[in-house]
Amino acid sequence: MRKGRWKLGNILKATGKQLDALAEETAQKLDWLGGFGKDSEGGVSRLLYSKEWVDGQNALKEWMENEGLEARFDEVGNLFGTLQGKNTDETILTGSHVDTVKNGGRYDGAYGIVAGILALKYLKEQFGQPLRNIEVVSMAEEEGSRFPYTFWGSKNIVGSAKREDVETITDFDGVPFVEAMSNAGFGFRDESKGTRNDLKAFVEVHVEQGSVLETEKKSVGVVHSIVGQRRYTVEITGEANHAGTTPMGYRKDAVFAASQMIVEIITMAKEAGDPLVATVGKIEVQPNIVNVVPGKAIFTIDVRHTDKEAIVSFTEKMTARMNDISKEHVVETAIDMWMDADPVPMDQTVVELIEKQCKENGLNYKLMHSGAGHDSQIFAPVVPTAMLFVPSLKGISHNPAEFTEPADLAEGVKALIGALYELGYKE
Amino acid sequence: MRKGRWKLGNILKATGKQLDALAEETAQKLDWLGGFGKDSEGGVSRLLYSKEWVDGQNALKEWMENEGLEARFDEVGNLFGTLQGKNTDETILTGSHVDTVKNGGRYDGAYGIVAGILALKYLKEQFGQPLRNIEVVSMAEEEGSRFPYTFWGSKNIVGSAKREDVETITDFDGVPFVEAMSNAGFGFRDESKGTRNDLKAFVEVHVEQGSVLETEKKSVGVVHSIVGQRRYTVEITGEANHAGTTPMGYRKDAVFAASQMIVEIITMAKEAGDPLVATVGKIEVQPNIVNVVPGKAIFTIDVRHTDKEAIVSFTEKMTARMNDISKEHVVETAIDMWMDADPVPMDQTVVELIEKQCKENGLNYKLMHSGAGHDSQIFAPVVPTAMLFVPSLKGISHNPAEFTEPADLAEGVKALIGALYELGYKE
Repeated sequence: MRKGRWKLGNILKATGKQLDALAEETAQKLDWLGGFGKDSEGGVSRLLYSKEWVDGQNALKEWMENEGLEARFDEVGNLFGTLQGKNTDETILTGSHVDTVKNGGRYDGAYGIVAGILALKYLKEQFGQPLRNIEVVSMAEEEGSRFPYTFWGSKNIVGSAKREDVETITDFDGVPFVEAMSNAGFGFRDESKGTRNDLKAFVEVHVEQGSVLETEKKSVGVVHSIVGQRRYTVEITGEANHAGTTPMGYRKDAVFAASQMIVEIITMAKEAGDPLVATVGKIEVQPNIVNVVPGKAIFTIDVRHTDKEAIVSFTEKMTARMNDISKEHVVETAIDMWMDADPVPMDQTVVELIEKQCKENGLNYKLMHSGAGHDSQIFAPVVPTAMLFVPSLKGISHNPAEFTEPADLAEGVKALIGALYELGYKE
Repeated sequence: MRKGRWKLGNILKATGKQLDALAEETAQKLDWLGGFGKDSEGGVSRLLYSKEWVDGQNALKEWMENEGLEARFDEVGNLFGTLQGKNTDETILTGSHVDTVKNGGRYDGAYGIVAGILALKYLKEQFGQPLRNIEVVSMAEEEGSRFPYTFWGSKNIVGSAKREDVETITDFDGVPFVEAMSNAGFGFRDESKGTRNDLKAFVEVHVEQGSVLETEKKSVGVVHSIVGQRRYTVEITGEANHAGTTPMGYRKDAVFAASQMIVEIITMAKEAGDPLVATVGKIEVQPNIVNVVPGKAIFTIDVRHTDKEAIVSFTEKMTARMNDISKEHVVETAIDMWMDADPVPMDQTVVELIEKQCKENGLNYKLMHSGAGHDSQIFAPVVPTAMLFVPSLKGISHNPAEFTEPADLAEGVKALIGALYELGYKE
C-alpha cells in the first residue's frame, strides 16, 4: 500500500504508460472473462446458472479474493466483493450483470464488473481503507435470455423479485428455473430476512450499446435518466384475396394499411425529435404468399422517451392516427399495449458529483440518457443510483462484434474510480 | 337419342324443374369428385400422381364411359373422353385440371371437367353425333402444388413440357417426379410422335376465383384475355440497431423504407385503375425483433394487367419510385424481377361466338378478363381458345370454403353447351 504517496489525480490524469497499462489491463480482463462461455460462433453465451456461468462466477470470486476483497455469494448467486470501510453500516455498490444473451459480446454487463473490481483494486492500493464499504457486485442475471424473466440479480438485491414469478418458468429446453438454480448451488432468498439497508449508492458502468458517444467523439457518458417505454402489438385484419382476381377497389389489404401506419408512426417520431424514438421491429403477414392480398398484418411498436408525459402524448397521437388509417382502409385494427415502463431518473446528487469529478479530472464526457434498460433502473427507486457509459463501436451490442477501444475502457474505469472515491472516501 | 325432337334452346332456356335438375346434377357430381382426396380438414387434397389422384382419374374414366364417350389416358396421365364426330380429323376440346392445391376446394379445376362431361352428355343425347370430335379432358396437373412445376397436363398436350424440367425435381417428401409418375402408371410423352394437329378449339370452364361476377350479380363470365404478370422480390438493406439507444436521426431503418415503398406502389396501382392490380403479399423482416431497428426488409410485388405495355409502363414507374425512396432513406435496394409473363388474349372469333350464344340464350353474362392463370394460357398460343367463368362465393378459392351456387353451375354448363354446339356441330 502506497497510501499518501499517490493521489487520485495521479490515476485520473494518468497519461502515457500508466493509462496504457490500465487500458491493457481492462481489455485483458474482459478477454479473460469472455473465455467463460466462449461459443463456437465467436461470441459469448453465458446464460444464468449454466456451467459457463458457474465457472465464470467462481473465477471472478477468486480474482476478487486475490485483490484482497471479501468475496461472497448471496442466496441466488449474486457475487459480491467488499472493500471494507471504517463504517460498515454504509455501502457504496458498483457492478453489473455477469449473464449474456445467446451469442453475445464480451462487454455487455461484464465491463461493469471488471471496471468495478479494477476500481476497487486501485482505490485500495492507493487510498487504503475507505470511510464506507465499497462493494463490487457481479449480478446473476439481467438479460432474460435463458428464462422469460429479467433482472433476477438486481431484483433480488433490492427485494423486488418474487418467488412465484419464476417457480413455474422453464428455459428453451424445458429445464425449470428452480432446477437450474438448485443445480448451480443456489436457492431462493429468505424473504423473512428483509433486504439490505446499508446501500447508500449504486453506480453502474456499462457499454452504451448505441453510437451517440462514438458519433460525438466522447469517451464517457454520465447518464441522467433511463428512458421509459411503451410497447405495442398492432393486429390489422383485412381480407385475404387472390392477387390476380381481386380488383384494387375490392381489397381490404392489411399490408397496405399497416405500411401507411408505419410510415406515419416513424415520421411522427422523427418530427417529435430526440430523445423520442419509435421502432417497428417486427412484422408478420398472413398468409404471406406472393400472390395473395394479405388478410392480416401484425407489427410491434416500441416507443421510448425520458419523459413520461412525452411518451403518453406521443402514443395517444399515434393511436388516434392508427385508428383513423384503419377506418380509411376499412380494416379492423386491434392495438395492444403490453409494456408501459416509466422513465427512471438517476439520482441528481450522485449525477452531479460524478459530473464534477469528470470535469475536475478533464474527462471527455457527455451528459446523456440511456435508451436501453439496465440494472440501475431496478436500484434507482430504492438506492441513489447513477450510471456511466463508454462508447460502443458502431453502437453494436448483443453481438460477438461488440467492441470498445481499450483507451475508452480505461476512461470509464477512471470515471468510476472518481465516483467511488467521492462516495466512499469522503465524509 | 331424341335428335330433332329437342332443340338447343330447350336446354339453354330451361327453367323450373329442368334447370334445377341440371344444377343439382352438376353439384352432385362435384361432391362425388371431391370425395377423391377429401382431407381431414374438410378440403380436397388431390395432388398429381397421388393415390387420390389415380382413383379420381379412374373414376372419371368410368363415368365418361358410362356416358358413351370413348375414354383414354395419354402417356402422362391426361384423361380424354371423346364424342366422335363425322369428321374425326377435327377436335373441339373442353375440360380443365383434376389436381388440387393442398387443402383446396371442390370447384377449382374439377368444375371444368364435370361441366365438360355433362355438356357432352346432353349434346350427345339431344343432337347425336357432332360434325367434329368433341372431347373433354381431365388434365393431370395445373397447380404446381406437389412438385415445383405447373401446367404439366396442358403443356404435354400442346407439346411444350420438357422432360428435363421435371427429371430432377422432387416433392416435399423427397419423392422424385419421375418415380411418382411411374408409380401412378404413367411415363414421359414420346416426343418423336409430335403433337396433336386435330385440335381446332379449346374452351375451358372454371370458377372465377375472384368476386367480380358475384359483386356484379352475373352468372357467367366470358373471358377475353388472361392477364400478364411481373413478379419481384425487393430486398432493402439498412442497418440493424438497438431500438432504444439509436436516435431517429442515426437510423437506416429498412422497414421504414419498405413501408413507404409499399404505400406508394399500392397508391400508384389504385390510381392506374382497373384492370391493373399490384400486390405486396409477402414481407420478411430481419432480425424481426421488437426492440431492434430492422436492418433488412424483403418483400414481393405481383403486378398484373391484360396489356403488356401497361405492365411495362407501370413497373418502370414503380421501380424508379422505389429507387428514389431508397436514396432518400440512404438504404440499399435490390429489385429482382423473377417472373415476366405476357398477357394471353383469348381467340377473338371463339369469344364472339360464345358471346353471341350467351346473348341469344339470355344468359346473364359479363365480358371480362381473368386475373389468374389457367390451362387456357398454355393452349391459346397454339389453339383458338376461350374461357367461361362462373362466380366464386366471396371470391374464395384454394380453400375448402370454395363455393358456387348450383344455379350458377348450371348456367356455366349451359354456356358451355352453347359454345360446343357452335364449334362442334355447325359447319
